Amino acid sequence: MSGKPPLRIGLIGTGFMGKAHVFGFAMAEKVFDLPYAIVLRTVADVTEEAAARAAADLGFARSTSDWRTLVEDPEIDVVDITAPNALHREMALAAIAAGKHVYCEKPLAPSAADARAMAEAAAAAGVVTQVGFNYLCNPMLALARDLIASGELGEIRGYRGLHAEDYMADADGVFTFRHDTAGGGALADIGSHALATAEFLLGPITQVMGDCVTMIGERPDERGGRRAVEVDDVGRAFLRFASGAQGSIEANWIATGRKMQHDFEVYGSRGTLHFSQERFNELHLYTTADPPGRRGFRRIEAAPEHPPYGRFCVAPGHQLGFNDLKAIEVAGYLRAISGETAEPFGFTAGLRIQNLVETIHRSSSEGRWLAVPA
Amino acid sequence: MSGKPPLRIGLIGTGFMGKAHVFGFAMAEKVFDLPYAIVLRTVADVTEEAAARAAADLGFARSTSDWRTLVEDPEIDVVDITAPNALHREMALAAIAAGKHVYCEKPLAPSAADARAMAEAAAAAGVVTQVGFNYLCNPMLALARDLIASGELGEIRGYRGLHAEDYMADADGVFTFRHDTAGGGALADIGSHALATAEFLLGPITQVMGDCVTMIGERPDERGGRRAVEVDDVGRAFLRFASGAQGSIEANWIATGRKMQHDFEVYGSRGTLHFSQERFNELHLYTTADPPGRRGFRRIEAAPEHPPYGRFCVAPGHQLGFNDLKAIEVAGYLRAISGETAEPFGFTAGLRIQNLVETIHRSSSEGRWLAVPA
Amino acid sequence: MSGKPPLRIGLIGTGFMGKAHVFGFAMAEKVFDLPYAIVLRTVADVTEEAAARAAADLGFARSTSDWRTLVEDPEIDVVDITAPNALHREMALAAIAAGKHVYCEKPLAPSAADARAMAEAAAAAGVVTQVGFNYLCNPMLALARDLIASGELGEIRGYRGLHAEDYMADADGVFTFRHDTAGGGALADIGSHALATAEFLLGPITQVMGDCVTMIGERPDERGGRRAVEVDDVGRAFLRFASGAQGSIEANWIATGRKMQHDFEVYGSRGTLHFSQERFNELHLYTTADPPGRRGFRRIEAAPEHPPYGRFCVAPGHQLGFNDLKAIEVAGYLRAISGETAEPFGFTAGLRIQNLVETIHRSSSEGRWLAVPA
Amino acid sequence: MSGKPPLRIGLIGTGFMGKAHVFGFAMAEKVFDLPYAIVLRTVADVTEEAAARAAADLGFARSTSDWRTLVEDPEIDVVDITAPNALHREMALAAIAAGKHVYCEKPLAPSAADARAMAEAAAAAGVVTQVGFNYLCNPMLALARDLIASGELGEIRGYRGLHAEDYMADADGVFTFRHDTAGGGALADIGSHALATAEFLLGPITQVMGDCVTMIGERPDERGGRRAVEVDDVGRAFLRFASGAQGSIEANWIATGRKMQHDFEVYGSRGTLHFSQERFNELHLYTTADPPGRRGFRRIEAAPEHPPYGRFCVAPGHQLGFNDLKAIEVAGYLRAISGETAEPFGFTAGLRIQNLVETIHRSSSEGRWLAVPA
Repeated sequence: MSGKPPLRIGLIGTGFMGKAHVFGFAMAEKVFDLPYAIVLRTVADVTEEAAARAAADLGFARSTSDWRTLVEDPEIDVVDITAPNALHREMALAAIAAGKHVYCEKPLAPSAADARAMAEAAAAAGVVTQVGFNYLCNPMLALARDLIASGELGEIRGYRGLHAEDYMADADGVFTFRHDTAGGGALADIGSHALATAEFLLGPITQVMGDCVTMIGERPDERGGRRAVEVDDVGRAFLRFASGAQGSIEANWIATGRKMQHDFEVYGSRGTLHFSQERFNELHLYTTADPPGRRGFRRIEAAPEHPPYGRFCVAPGHQLGFNDLKAIEVAGYLRAISGETAEPFGFTAGLRIQNLVETIHRSSSEGRWLAVPA
Repeated sequence: MSGKPPLRIGLIGTGFMGKAHVFGFAMAEKVFDLPYAIVLRTVADVTEEAAARAAADLGFARSTSDWRTLVEDPEIDVVDITAPNALHREMALAAIAAGKHVYCEKPLAPSAADARAMAEAAAAAGVVTQVGFNYLCNPMLALARDLIASGELGEIRGYRGLHAEDYMADADGVFTFRHDTAGGGALADIGSHALATAEFLLGPITQVMGDCVTMIGERPDERGGRRAVEVDDVGRAFLRFASGAQGSIEANWIATGRKMQHDFEVYGSRGTLHFSQERFNELHLYTTADPPGRRGFRRIEAAPEHPPYGRFCVAPGHQLGFNDLKAIEVAGYLRAISGETAEPFGFTAGLRIQNLVETIHRSSSEGRWLAVPA
Repeated sequence: MSGKPPLRIGLIGTGFMGKAHVFGFAMAEKVFDLPYAIVLRTVADVTEEAAARAAADLGFARSTSDWRTLVEDPEIDVVDITAPNALHREMALAAIAAGKHVYCEKPLAPSAADARAMAEAAAAAGVVTQVGFNYLCNPMLALARDLIASGELGEIRGYRGLHAEDYMADADGVFTFRHDTAGGGALADIGSHALATAEFLLGPITQVMGDCVTMIGERPDERGGRRAVEVDDVGRAFLRFASGAQGSIEANWIATGRKMQHDFEVYGSRGTLHFSQERFNELHLYTTADPPGRRGFRRIEAAPEHPPYGRFCVAPGHQLGFNDLKAIEVAGYLRAISGETAEPFGFTAGLRIQNLVETIHRSSSEGRWLAVPA
Repeated sequence: MSGKPPLRIGLIGTGFMGKAHVFGFAMAEKVFDLPYAIVLRTVADVTEEAAARAAADLGFARSTSDWRTLVEDPEIDVVDITAPNALHREMALAAIAAGKHVYCEKPLAPSAADARAMAEAAAAAGVVTQVGFNYLCNPMLALARDLIASGELGEIRGYRGLHAEDYMADADGVFTFRHDTAGGGALADIGSHALATAEFLLGPITQVMGDCVTMIGERPDERGGRRAVEVDDVGRAFLRFASGAQGSIEANWIATGRKMQHDFEVYGSRGTLHFSQERFNELHLYTTADPPGRRGFRRIEAAPEHPPYGRFCVAPGHQLGFNDLKAIEVAGYLRAISGETAEPFGFTAGLRIQNLVETIHRSSSEGRWLAVPA
């Protein structure tokens, strides 16, 4: 349809994020004027049956239980990886070797070394990559970044970021791959979002002092036993930015009652921003440009003035949903593939986040400040 | 794909709501296990060029500038009407005459008489209809209705509904079809939402006392002149429900600063609900079942416990967007077409809303309470 | 102390409001530079014992069980009436006859006729009066009035006021004087606040359409029986203001979960105000003077820029309490007694509220709009 | 009056806090049934004129410019110190030496050594002391502590505290005693509140890792020059509690737009508390005891169920103000003097806070975790 060149997707993994990617593709195609016609070519899952069912449910033409055949299929242009973290490296390197563009869910890899190998391979091959930090695709975050960059807030002095959820708050919850020291823990899993947002808004973090704590020391395993947990339930860091600003982040997956609290506060000399993912269609702005006695935090609601909100809805205040952020991510990725724009958040950016996570972990272990590798 | 029978859509109108329907179709197909495979067959717009462009943008196979050919096309199963209000009757009756199912944006028609003709024709023909009151598709509204129906709030005594926006607050805004007495005004345009929600939650309204006010008495027309406005900028009503409850609603399209404030408060003898569309992924519940000193309005965030939220996202608190509500509406409609369920909000329900709007208008003019026709 | 002339207070009644007045006197004397030294001369209660205990607790020099001796005491300058509503007229007229200034809790009297007699007597005697509508003393309401009067909001078009509490939500709550048709009901008791605020902000209300509803038809009396309730649990009105604005108010004392929800929203052509007594140290302002894409409701926190906040605290955001509003009321009253200012909210203003209440009641009974007596 | 024994107050300092103490005395006497009759005997200020004016304004019988005569006056029972921080030690030791009870505004002293000397002297003399951490007197904090202590939240795992204001955000603000390394800085000035609340709720902090940052490196002095600032504008710490819980606090006095944001979040295994001083008559409680699908943060409003709220107001939701918290502090202090209760927050507790502040400062300088002296 539409005379656009096709872009053929091979999706690996059909869980929460696999589905979210498919929703993103579907919505992006309707909402945006994309440079390609998206073709859902093949989906891979762990068994043939699961893959076939996913193909039917999600609208892929083919299915497979062998991700390698997908990766090597000449009729696939983009390999989309939503498999567990520990598999990202192998899959991505194979896809890159086959000349595919690679779209990979976050975090990019269990270790910075893995991430570096992936980023270097992608750069060498000249393929276009994307890591799924879709909270950054929120029009309200673009507004926040504009407000900072424009100088409307004056000199940016401070930052406080938070990502709190409670999906690991139950001490009887079973040990999973997320509890494995190879890439697991709250800091890697959700602190990565907090770090990505911090750098998205204020630029590079140069020094960190970490504090990573395990509060639930063991969990039931799947065979009726107990297994020691060594990853952090709470990961914090003090931060120094290259810009001269300073601040902190906290990642917490045992924050009982919090479901999606990805918050930040940015303090400038002439204004402040407050944001909460709990109400992510709003941004709160305080500015000293308002007259005395009339100042206050202003609740700005997402509207067509905040692109690309208007693609979804011509009327203000109607609100985007979580999956809409994924559609924005997809659209940005396709524009990068077409050469229209640079990679919005590619493997190099993903490596950057892994470096931050590892440096914070190491700082916490060593009990001292560390410089973040460039 | 998928072996499901096709359901072929013919869409009339490609504005705000036309697009929202297409987004709803796209998302519904991915998110839900629908009884049909949706086929976007034909789109109609006012010119051939506009229609062709819409077909390309939105993914329809064909386009036309003649809605009658669309309506009569034997390869179309559902006629989806998002054209201006004044055209709904003619289009819907033609579609029903051609044996099509009809999906019609709200309000159903400019007058209750029109709506009645449409509802009767649909009933006689046995086609399945849907009117686009998509705010009712919010999982938080389903939760509200459950809380009321289950008796958790005790005897329901009072209701206060509001739908406030500011898209007509600018007195220099041009006179449009929405300012025409044939079906225009705040009460018909957005008060219809407030009335639909009131009855969705508390059941039939039996008596009303209306207060409809024009505050901006004339507006510029498109030829440089001024034109008198006779429709209401604010429409209010006192309400009596068949259940014994009482309350009020207000519709206001000159509510400067309000973008989408579709709010309600339901007072029961043992609990109260508060909701605002400004944060529509939340429902606030107060219950006297909580111990003294520990009571308070509880902010419930949308989660998989509130179907069909979990179809969109397996994790709580991630939030649905406006277009997702349309996807839920589409899914409900397709299930009704397949016979799986009854019409969620068909033409009979749409007629009901028109009756309420007209009775409130008449009550306002006559300055007295009126019974609502059954 | 301090060389100021004394102002000797005689207080009748020592319940919730009696105590609040004493707190107000104590705080006002410390916080403000008052024209008088307040002397708590005599307190009257129903028995000698209760009065003596109140004198000891609250710091009055003398006590009595006979309010008439208090009223006629030449060593008393101000008679402060916090006895039940039904006694206000007799007490106030006696006090006025004795040449006293009279401070009377709201509502002024059970009927407009009583209130008129009181207002006329006070005017004839030239004494200074005050009715206790202390919510009007909030610095945030002064700010709201300034914003309206200054034209910053443009033409004021609409108003919505609410006063909701739940102290009568329990159907097993005993029948009290507040349930008596002589002056009782939600509209008289708390709707009077909503009406006072509406006129404080927008000026005179000229026409009303009332809707007063009894939802709990009978209540236990104190002797084990049941007694029919005829007063309104919910009282609403549509409003027309002399200014050309229009709006509504609702009073509701069966609003389960609401403790002190005295709210309003004022819609202007260029801005809107939102206020809730639930957070009464804040006023929310939306203005179209903000640039597009940066607009939103701004949460202004009470601060020294909002007099007389700075008398209580030199730092912003520290917040006033309910009793502080009473201290502001006391200070305003004393300035009026000294001749420095006019009566802030005297018996004439109190009569005005009773007229509104009675007209709304009558309108509700007759089912039609009524003009409010000037 | 009232037959109670007198308690004669000598107040040193008449600024923000001096006035707040007087307001607290006045309100406490009316609101509570105190063991003493408070007598405002003498006020000391820097000049005779200022002191005489303060005596007249605030209602003291006498005045002096020599605090030593006040301290030694045999007709004074309590010396109340609201002079600048650097003077606290000398004044308090003199007062203790004269056998007076001492009420001292926070922070107790510029250094932990000073605070220790004061605490030891008070203990040796057997006088009763109070340090003015009045935010701890909020009924909502008592509720929070009860919820934690009762086990309703399960095992307490995490804490995040914040005290943010913006009174030093203006880089052109003049250098004051608060910028002096002898006791100044955000951590000492307001971080002390955050630390007091943290220990009030969760018990002793045993280890800290500090991060204290100066963002505004120099400020104008009062003679037209510039002066280097060495104290922290932002002070943070990671925390370990003796209970096994962990967390963090931040103090920030350059938080543009924040006026009084004393917030905390307490995470337990079965529930969470959230509180903000910006709305300090509310406490937000999440509990997993609520049924799935009905859970959410519950906004509990201050009410008579939360003592001593009911002393101020018999009706819920009417709200206490900042000065009311001071009245509660005064009442607690008088009960301790009378022997009815132990010291609520005496010099030993104040020393504890100074120890925490100094340890955090030192930890920040040394870039490593430190144990807090017991």
